[in-house]
Amino acid sequence: MIVTTSKLLERQGFHGTGLNQILDEANAPKGSMYFHFPGGKNQLAAEAIAAAADYIDRALRTHEGGSALEAIDGYLAQMAGWLESTEFSGGCPIATTALEVGATTPDLGDACEAAFERLISRVAGWLEADGFDAETARERATLVYSAIEGALIFSKARRSSEPLQRLRTELPRLIGTPT
Amino acid sequence: MIVTTSKLLERQGFHGTGLNQILDEANAPKGSMYFHFPGGKNQLAAEAIAAAADYIDRALRTHEGGSALEAIDGYLAQMAGWLESTEFSGGCPIATTALEVGATTPDLGDACEAAFERLISRVAGWLEADGFDAETARERATLVYSAIEGALIFSKARRSSEPLQRLRTELPRLIGTPT
Repeated sequence: MIVTTSKLLERQGFHGTGLNQILDEANAPKGSMYFHFPGGKNQLAAEAIAAAADYIDRALRTHEGGSALEAIDGYLAQMAGWLESTEFSGGCPIATTALEVGATTPDLGDACEAAFERLISRVAGWLEADGFDAETARERATLVYSAIEGALIFSKARRSSEPLQRLRTELPRLIGTPT
Repeated sequence: MIVTTSKLLERQGFHGTGLNQILDEANAPKGSMYFHFPGGKNQLAAEAIAAAADYIDRALRTHEGGSALEAIDGYLAQMAGWLESTEFSGGCPIATTALEVGATTPDLGDACEAAFERLISRVAGWLEADGFDAETARERATLVYSAIEGALIFSKARRSSEPLQRLRTELPRLIGTPT
């Protein structure tokens, strides 16, 4: 149910995803939902967002080994290919939920915030390993992650991976060098 | 009806916004909707996105007069204050719609793409006036606008304008100087 919810949030957002559709696509009986998730759709969505952060973090880590720049570039290339393969219906369940209900549903805002924090920390850790001080690493990681989310939005609007590919060419300037 | 739709898209997204709520909040009789917008909710949303681009473009232009950096910085300061004043329920109707349905509803994807194109062109025009060549101006404008959308997502998740304020300090490096 958590995986199904995460996929549906990604493709159609929080409001577009109904409980019946989740149960249906997860092949789960109706009673199981409130048994496992007494907090209902909000609890299920919060756990789906945490699971999405796990999944994305694992995807990020498959590109580890070289510099932060190489890892981020590899991740962007993977993301571009994956968006193309889903005909741009894929996306980021965390960003979509944050924009729709991050401010008005505190539990979901907190879940999105914790998820972003985790992914930004991963990138910041890479930058520290490359010699950036902790504060600069965090700032640059936040900036890089902002630009990734923005490029994803443009890619979905345009149904083209070009904004993500363009971001790859901007990465060296965006990341800069340790001072 | 267009203004109401734009505000509702911004606060709760495309799927969260029902036709009845639009008619209700716009004080419009039910028959008027299909008379003015025979294409229904999709047409109304596409026009609301175009109207949002008009509105944001006017907001951007109130900061014109100095450099591109000063104008973008002024716009970000305004955006941070406005998000705080709406307790972060404000946002970007274009980004929310692009993430939810940009890829799956071509008319709305096209509307979002045209809206972003317009705003990116405005920023690119400022950069050209500052001496950047056309291609670089466009690349930097796209990057700046990506980072703005990403910082907005983080601000809404965190219910804090700190991500937008932090972006302000990164602008000089993000924009760079003409070569």
